[in-house]
Amino acid sequence: MKTYLDCIPCFFKQALDMARRSKANQKKQKKILDILSLKIPEFSLNSSPPEMARIVQKIVKKVTGIQDPYAKIKEKSNKLALSYYPKLKKKVKKVKDPLLFSVELAIAGNIIDYGVKNDLNIEKEVDQILAQESQTIGKESKAIFNYREFKETLGNSKDILYLADNAGEVVFDRILIEEIKEIYPDKKITYAVKKRPIINDALEKDAYFCGIDKAARVISSGSDAPGTIFSLCSKSFLKLFRESNMVISKGQGNFESLSREGSRGVFFLFMVKCPVVARSIGCKIKDIILYSK
Amino acid sequence: MKTYLDCIPCFFKQALDMARRSKANQKKQKKILDILSLKIPEFSLNSSPPEMARIVQKIVKKVTGIQDPYAKIKEKSNKLALSYYPKLKKKVKKVKDPLLFSVELAIAGNIIDYGVKNDLNIEKEVDQILAQESQTIGKESKAIFNYREFKETLGNSKDILYLADNAGEVVFDRILIEEIKEIYPDKKITYAVKKRPIINDALEKDAYFCGIDKAARVISSGSDAPGTIFSLCSKSFLKLFRESNMVISKGQGNFESLSREGSRGVFFLFMVKCPVVARSIGCKIKDIILYSK
Repeated sequence: MKTYLDCIPCFFKQALDMARRSKANQKKQKKILDILSLKIPEFSLNSSPPEMARIVQKIVKKVTGIQDPYAKIKEKSNKLALSYYPKLKKKVKKVKDPLLFSVELAIAGNIIDYGVKNDLNIEKEVDQILAQESQTIGKESKAIFNYREFKETLGNSKDILYLADNAGEVVFDRILIEEIKEIYPDKKITYAVKKRPIINDALEKDAYFCGIDKAARVISSGSDAPGTIFSLCSKSFLKLFRESNMVISKGQGNFESLSREGSRGVFFLFMVKCPVVARSIGCKIKDIILYSK
Repeated sequence: MKTYLDCIPCFFKQALDMARRSKANQKKQKKILDILSLKIPEFSLNSSPPEMARIVQKIVKKVTGIQDPYAKIKEKSNKLALSYYPKLKKKVKKVKDPLLFSVELAIAGNIIDYGVKNDLNIEKEVDQILAQESQTIGKESKAIFNYREFKETLGNSKDILYLADNAGEVVFDRILIEEIKEIYPDKKITYAVKKRPIINDALEKDAYFCGIDKAARVISSGSDAPGTIFSLCSKSFLKLFRESNMVISKGQGNFESLSREGSRGVFFLFMVKCPVVARSIGCKIKDIILYSK
């Protein structure tokens, strides 16, 4: 996805949020916005939004010296999500279509991200998810949900690359991966996280903390962009991306950076988080998307 | 009110909105945002937000050549508000405290501004206003509403300066001014609008179109800022401002620009429209405020 002009006000919001989480004082916050301002005319709209998010983080790091402003948030998300794990596993065992439910759950895991940031009542949201058999079936929603293709490709794929999104959410990914392994014990699944801190994206330590290594091999993309930007990824990651039969891409950041890459077999699982993305794919904010390319 | 860092993302949103209303193409929209970006480091946070809104409009005008991008919106607002006039007048005659109701109505008139911009169901909003005796009495709201002081100052003031906000809303101001004249036929009321187009602020032609000249003398502030910035106003306006016994200041823009001026006898009537203002005065968005200084 290219960057829309409507993303520009949002870059400033992100910078301010990052600056404040880095405990920057008023003067430093202003300095960060001033430096960002001067980057705007240089930034090409042909780049994807995560590329700018990375630039924003670089500015904040340089001005504040703080390397991982979201460290505490990530820790909190991990613990919170893990506390739901037993409940969620129990529910998966009960529903009619555990794979479908796990897919929906993996997408809905984004709510942790939302919640920790915005003081949302996550308990209530998770309970709502648990109260239903399925989030998508029987709903007159225009949201994109290519589940049939997902299932088919999954059945035919041996090597699966799973691109992580945020910390905390990893627990929800783990449930989906465990479900896949339950149905297809021979699948080889690799779970790719970010190399260095960027916003609240999962790092290797988050993946291990959430216990995803019990079901998948954990690697890093080699990059610190909040998405998958090929030019910033490691060679070994790119090789794996090319050679995998199926890519499960989690989160809006991966969608924004990969949706134009024309790669086959990529399934984007994400919750729509901003009006620009909603408009570009014809959905609503908070819609649950399973989009195949 | 000074400019908060949170206002900066909003300046970009305003610029984009203004650019699109001026029918700027993508390239011109980008150019506008780029020019604005370079202004950010120069802009002092000690200036009030309406000062930047004026700079934004200057940039858009220069790039697009369009002098009044909100002309159609203003026309639509005027006509819509006028269509409610008979209904509203009838209601004022029926309520227990017509002055209080008119004050609330004048503030609620801001909804027209909101509605025309955001496709809000204005009919429904106006009907809700009409269904109640009063918006503020009996409500456990923490919103500021210094009605007693307003009434007292009104009783003791001969010359009243009324600072207009948006087109359309003028009709609601007219009802309040007519009510004041009904109770105090000897009051001299002057209604001040903007000199040149700025966003959807009322100009002299809007004031006349909405028939406010039947109850008040119409003048302009001499400025094209979406608020009252003394350094930009005409000498005759400033003389009037100084010599009036009471100033009724409508809208958030006038509050943002005048709240630090320390002038006595100014009553700010506005609906809270943004989180920054809400936070700065301890209210919620859409709260109805009558604040005296």
